[in-house]
Amino acid sequence: MRLAKVIGTVVATRKEDSLIGFKLLVIEEIDPREERPINNRLVAVDTLGAGEGDIVLWVQGGAARVISDEHRKAPLDVAIVGIIDAVDIADE
Amino acid sequence: MRLAKVIGTVVATRKEDSLIGFKLLVIEEIDPREERPINNRLVAVDTLGAGEGDIVLWVQGGAARVISDEHRKAPLDVAIVGIIDAVDIADE
Amino acid sequence: MRLAKVIGTVVATRKEDSLIGFKLLVIEEIDPREERPINNRLVAVDTLGAGEGDIVLWVQGGAARVISDEHRKAPLDVAIVGIIDAVDIADE
Amino acid sequence: MRLAKVIGTVVATRKEDSLIGFKLLVIEEIDPREERPINNRLVAVDTLGAGEGDIVLWVQGGAARVISDEHRKAPLDVAIVGIIDAVDIADE
Amino acid sequence: MRLAKVIGTVVATRKEDSLIGFKLLVIEEIDPREERPINNRLVAVDTLGAGEGDIVLWVQGGAARVISDEHRKAPLDVAIVGIIDAVDIADE
Repeated sequence: MRLAKVIGTVVATRKEDSLIGFKLLVIEEIDPREERPINNRLVAVDTLGAGEGDIVLWVQGGAARVISDEHRKAPLDVAIVGIIDAVDIADE
Repeated sequence: MRLAKVIGTVVATRKEDSLIGFKLLVIEEIDPREERPINNRLVAVDTLGAGEGDIVLWVQGGAARVISDEHRKAPLDVAIVGIIDAVDIADE
Repeated sequence: MRLAKVIGTVVATRKEDSLIGFKLLVIEEIDPREERPINNRLVAVDTLGAGEGDIVLWVQGGAARVISDEHRKAPLDVAIVGIIDAVDIADE
Repeated sequence: MRLAKVIGTVVATRKEDSLIGFKLLVIEEIDPREERPINNRLVAVDTLGAGEGDIVLWVQGGAARVISDEHRKAPLDVAIVGIIDAVDIADE
Repeated sequence: MRLAKVIGTVVATRKEDSLIGFKLLVIEEIDPREERPINNRLVAVDTLGAGEGDIVLWVQGGAARVISDEHRKAPLDVAIVGIIDAVDIADE
């Protein structure tokens, strides 16, 4: 699991039928220590109601498809699974 | 899921039987914020009718094989799953 | 499997139901030869009672979900699976 | 899926029983646009009769194990799945 | 599959029950062309009796869990699957 900031959306009219109804967000990975963007931007499915500016927890690979039966049948490899309230890093 | 631009095709006469009939496209990853190519080029299976110049949404890993029974039996690890109409990124 | 140091925690009130009850720790990958941090920080689920400063063994991908029935149903892709007592590297 | 050139072989007398009989080739990833090697060399299982100098299509992860029942039971994560006749890239 | 040199061991007294009895080795990835270390060190499970200095063949991901029923139930994502006798690379 990694952190990211929601920075936008994508629209795809032509897509796999099993993806219809899923909200797709553009996310930018965030380093948890620095709380700064890393140069890694991807597209994640969201079913938690995340919005622009939110810091989210995301997973990749098969983990993105265990969320529900709809997720299981869809070609998903990145999913938002939490919205972060706080990150607490120990002093070095 | 990530974005890419379709930049070409590959022909492979000798291949796994389960790959026969699949269209294989060369794609170049695109950064969603900059809408510029990233130095990552791969070969994706396409069943949506994508063509050269299209911006597409692609998945990797097991996600590429959940699309249909034919996909499930074939050694596929990258698939195009949407054709992008618009990317909307928030101002920083 | 890779090594990491536990450096913090994250709190996410809104999350997938299947993640409720899992402890989420921020970890920083450690190179086993140098025993120094690598620039790779992620969020791992912990069921071993690891705490800040511990050097841990972690897995990624489907391995994170074979640990228990609760893990299997949850969207997990990084898990702590051991707490390291000693690393012994041969002289070059 | 990615492209690679076959550059050699490896011999391993002691190995998992399920790997006995599989041909193992050293491959070097090729960028499809430049048709030049990328700094990524790995070992792939081959059942198509690929030879040194061939440009091949390869997959990683679970895709390498869906090819046959023998593949399914063996610890394989990289497989050659096609031999490339031609790569056609659009002019920029 | 990739090559690596065995460079050490790790000890973890507290760990997942399903990992008890598995030998854990520290490995350092080796480039097959140069036969030189790459800057990538990880921890692999070994059931072949590999020892320090051996050049081994390793897999990552689900491949590490298909080796036996014990492997299947354990949170493993890196496994040694062969001990290399010879690497033969073609002249350029």
